[in-house]
Amino acid sequence: MLVVKVGGSAGIDYDALCNDVATLWKSGERLVLVHGGSDETNRVAEALGHPPRFVTSPSGYTSRYTDRRTLEIFEMVYCGVANKGLVERLQGRGINALGLSGLDGRLLQGKRKAAIRIVENGRQKILRDDWTGTVEQVNTELLQTLLAGEYLPVIAPLACSEHGEALNVDGDRAAAAIAIALKASKLLLLSNVPGLLQDFPNVDSLITRIPASDVESYLQYAEGRMKKKVLGASEAISQGVGEVILGDARAAGCVSHALEGQGTVIA
Amino acid sequence: MLVVKVGGSAGIDYDALCNDVATLWKSGERLVLVHGGSDETNRVAEALGHPPRFVTSPSGYTSRYTDRRTLEIFEMVYCGVANKGLVERLQGRGINALGLSGLDGRLLQGKRKAAIRIVENGRQKILRDDWTGTVEQVNTELLQTLLAGEYLPVIAPLACSEHGEALNVDGDRAAAAIAIALKASKLLLLSNVPGLLQDFPNVDSLITRIPASDVESYLQYAEGRMKKKVLGASEAISQGVGEVILGDARAAGCVSHALEGQGTVIA
Repeated sequence: MLVVKVGGSAGIDYDALCNDVATLWKSGERLVLVHGGSDETNRVAEALGHPPRFVTSPSGYTSRYTDRRTLEIFEMVYCGVANKGLVERLQGRGINALGLSGLDGRLLQGKRKAAIRIVENGRQKILRDDWTGTVEQVNTELLQTLLAGEYLPVIAPLACSEHGEALNVDGDRAAAAIAIALKASKLLLLSNVPGLLQDFPNVDSLITRIPASDVESYLQYAEGRMKKKVLGASEAISQGVGEVILGDARAAGCVSHALEGQGTVIA
Repeated sequence: MLVVKVGGSAGIDYDALCNDVATLWKSGERLVLVHGGSDETNRVAEALGHPPRFVTSPSGYTSRYTDRRTLEIFEMVYCGVANKGLVERLQGRGINALGLSGLDGRLLQGKRKAAIRIVENGRQKILRDDWTGTVEQVNTELLQTLLAGEYLPVIAPLACSEHGEALNVDGDRAAAAIAIALKASKLLLLSNVPGLLQDFPNVDSLITRIPASDVESYLQYAEGRMKKKVLGASEAISQGVGEVILGDARAAGCVSHALEGQGTVIA
């Protein structure tokens, strides 16, 4: 069992990704696909007159401030065009893909952080009306039922709070939670960079291997959104996932290249 | 088994609808919810600079011209904010709702009409690059699996073509196809009118009862989008659905009122 997360940044080749995913699936490999949609969400939010706002936590993690209107726009892009775009590409390749968000059937159950602490201009402040959260539980039974029915689950990273609220959750950490729940042998976190760079943004400084015992010490090299990938990798590795690969989704063969060990391999 | 279709026009009270659906579900009734999203799609399409275009067929049926960009906007609203808005309302009421489109898992398999014949200014013409279609088959097994797992399916009216393409399909006729496939006892088509009016738009001219043997002769009274509701009703009744009710979704108790026989009852 594999879990593949593909980001939503500029430059990702979704047709190439779906070619690879379809080949793997037809060879008998079972997998779950988790996706992003950040770039398109920014574009749609601008066009709808509600521009994105990114905030940084005191520990240096960046995230999208998600007020109620942003949550709706997030749903439009992630559950709408991004999720259905992948499902359609896979259906066109003869794979019976089925798109869900983590809200659906409480696939991902999470805890809402209604108020978040951020750092702005060097000062800490609290933001309210935030609809983000963290995944606490995965409805493994639902995923297993779908996989047993030969459906390929394509998951948008929302979660369902204990009160039934929709939450924006981080896609990399959601993919890690799914990999842990399914006892996946490998978790692939694919984006528009070659992997973790020791000297960002110098692509010649790619870190090719990280020992499983020492993931957290590599957090110092992670910039921006790579931080949550390394955090997700650390969570997955410490809870039984055999291998996490941070790979590049911008070219043909991205999934097979990652499986062959290109990128940053954490094992 | 019930199938409830709720429209996407102005004035519909989705909170009231979900109160009713939750009460029914908790009483043990099993149902599938199909929804619209037309009004919001129009608003988003305008805001994104791709205004809606409605076309009329030679036989008088109106539909949304769906070029590729419109299909994406349709997905954003129907699969995004409309579908997840209903799922979230139901989850908040303790119901394990699960939202899908007909593209997912080939839930609704359809035939694409890539070129459509329309009437414009009294003249017929052909429009191409259209991503609409009609439902030909329902993946009953998938719906039964979800219902057996105590999930309430919430369905956005897209279909999957034989080539795996996403198609915009009419929600009322999709609901009729689902009701037929599930051998539902009743199909409720709820919108922002009280039912079929003999003298549109005079609400005092509500037709309260139509004999099952004579549905098509009532097509003459249907204006605009009511035409497809009557057509869907006719398809459902002729293929084994016991009763179709055209009801009003603008007030509290809309589902139970329709079940009690308010609106236009076809039986």
